[in-house]
Amino acid sequence: MSRAWSLVRRPTGLPTAGNFELIDLPAVPLKEGEFRVRNTWLSVDPYMRARMEEIKYAPCFQIGEPMYGSAVGEVIETRNAAFKVGDRVYHSEGWREEAIVDPSLGAKEGVAPFVLPDLGVEEQVWLHNLGIPGGTGYFALFRTAGAKAGDIMFVSAAAGAVGSAVVQMGKARGMTVIGSAGGPEKCAFVKSLGADAVIDYKAGPVLESLREAAPEGIDVYFDNVAGDHLDAALACARPHARFAMCGMIGVYNENQPLELRNSRRIIQARIRLEGMYFGEFADELPVFYEDMGGMIARGEVRSVETVSEGIETMPEAFIGLFSGRNTGKMLVKL
Amino acid sequence: MSRAWSLVRRPTGLPTAGNFELIDLPAVPLKEGEFRVRNTWLSVDPYMRARMEEIKYAPCFQIGEPMYGSAVGEVIETRNAAFKVGDRVYHSEGWREEAIVDPSLGAKEGVAPFVLPDLGVEEQVWLHNLGIPGGTGYFALFRTAGAKAGDIMFVSAAAGAVGSAVVQMGKARGMTVIGSAGGPEKCAFVKSLGADAVIDYKAGPVLESLREAAPEGIDVYFDNVAGDHLDAALACARPHARFAMCGMIGVYNENQPLELRNSRRIIQARIRLEGMYFGEFADELPVFYEDMGGMIARGEVRSVETVSEGIETMPEAFIGLFSGRNTGKMLVKL
Repeated sequence: MSRAWSLVRRPTGLPTAGNFELIDLPAVPLKEGEFRVRNTWLSVDPYMRARMEEIKYAPCFQIGEPMYGSAVGEVIETRNAAFKVGDRVYHSEGWREEAIVDPSLGAKEGVAPFVLPDLGVEEQVWLHNLGIPGGTGYFALFRTAGAKAGDIMFVSAAAGAVGSAVVQMGKARGMTVIGSAGGPEKCAFVKSLGADAVIDYKAGPVLESLREAAPEGIDVYFDNVAGDHLDAALACARPHARFAMCGMIGVYNENQPLELRNSRRIIQARIRLEGMYFGEFADELPVFYEDMGGMIARGEVRSVETVSEGIETMPEAFIGLFSGRNTGKMLVKL
Repeated sequence: MSRAWSLVRRPTGLPTAGNFELIDLPAVPLKEGEFRVRNTWLSVDPYMRARMEEIKYAPCFQIGEPMYGSAVGEVIETRNAAFKVGDRVYHSEGWREEAIVDPSLGAKEGVAPFVLPDLGVEEQVWLHNLGIPGGTGYFALFRTAGAKAGDIMFVSAAAGAVGSAVVQMGKARGMTVIGSAGGPEKCAFVKSLGADAVIDYKAGPVLESLREAAPEGIDVYFDNVAGDHLDAALACARPHARFAMCGMIGVYNENQPLELRNSRRIIQARIRLEGMYFGEFADELPVFYEDMGGMIARGEVRSVETVSEGIETMPEAFIGLFSGRNTGKMLVKL
């Protein structure tokens, strides 16, 4: 028997334990082409908050159905020749103990199921630096924002899963990196990743801190939070600055509008802001695996994890993303 | 003797008559290379509001100095062989009766002084459809937003100088065009320009009207006002919609922040927003003159003007831009 987390009602603000229910999945025999996985690691990611709402142009969780997301585990039963019993696999049927995976459904959540290649990394790294957070950072930084050596790059939520990868990639590729994080411990962590300057957004207004950290302004802003950070980045943007809009932790959970005092700088400095969604870069995943794999192998990008143990802890781990409980990638270990 | 408008204090909100002073310019002899113009038409444009503040990365008006901007007039004295007495010229020393122009200073305000070519248009057209408003519309629509045939394009302030050109160019190039304007008369005017649908933003919430006018969403938003229009455009944007950010009449004059309730759609629909400044397209002006000249000659883009007579009326004409006094291009005739 397998248990799974299901959405019982859609949140209007911050999700709470009452939005989730642990249900028993019926025992279902495999169909031709499917395989069964005992999950070992489950991913919780801020973008899943968006999946909890009914939104246009992107999939969303259905009430009463199991939730889903990235997971790794071991194949325990199979009717698919490409996935053998004992294989360690990546797939997108997370939020549950055991999953039935049908590879013919393709790239659900942006990545089709695959057997983990041997890159000499721990298997859970496929849920962060080699997974959606690392890939989001990679494609948003180098494609959406077109960041390059010499750029002054500002990244918010720099102690998080995406942010910590972005800080390290920025340094590996010759940028000046300014990260923001909440509290002295997280700031010290971001600094330890190689950031040239770190802003503690809990210690004072982001705008003042950013002006001090980047007196010459910024060329790239990697946005994970919107809110005050976005407003400060607008104020400090140099001409033709590029903003990769990757997350809005600051507005996902509030029914408050986003307030921007410096919006006119979009015109004054000819800033480009662009939203990005990892799933649209599916065709370029091989480039990412090779490039990121190299950065990991050379020690330029290292793994940082916050681990929550047991499926019962999963909603709590997820909710913790929005209060900054995690340093690096938040994972649930089964 | 020549009179000129000077900035006496910087406005904090809407400009008022008290921000301006009509001063006498000293009689100065021409230097080698200069010429003197008796201005016949002066331009007032919303972007000049931004020049009234001290801003980074863009020129601004200096307190006590004559203001400036696009103008056309007749050469009455010259020490430059390329500009002969009697020539009709375009230059950027507006906001005054007579101007000394030094072509060696180059493209002040984005366009270097030139003798008006004979395109069979009235000379003041060089201040709108063939000038900065038309050029802003042209480059923002086709370059910044990359608008093309088949796109559903929404343009705010569609009865204004830039907007009326954008509506007509959109129709000439095979787009579905939705314009917004304030009040039934302006809406009827936008409709007469060929718009497929027109929203009266004074008659109800922009978002509801836009949803009705564009049930399938929009591909391009040409932003002249920010505010509610931008928020509605975010809500209705289709995947990979492109927003050309060209003006913020709605925020230039308020110390209110811009409030966006639909900012998360930037990510959900992978929207690209980009600020544009006409002056950066100076190298491409010949393409614009040819392309726009053709649209004018074929009757696809026609001239619409609101004319204010006499230099004394200039601040009032300028201030009127922000209360929607003009239909089409607001001009001051001397």
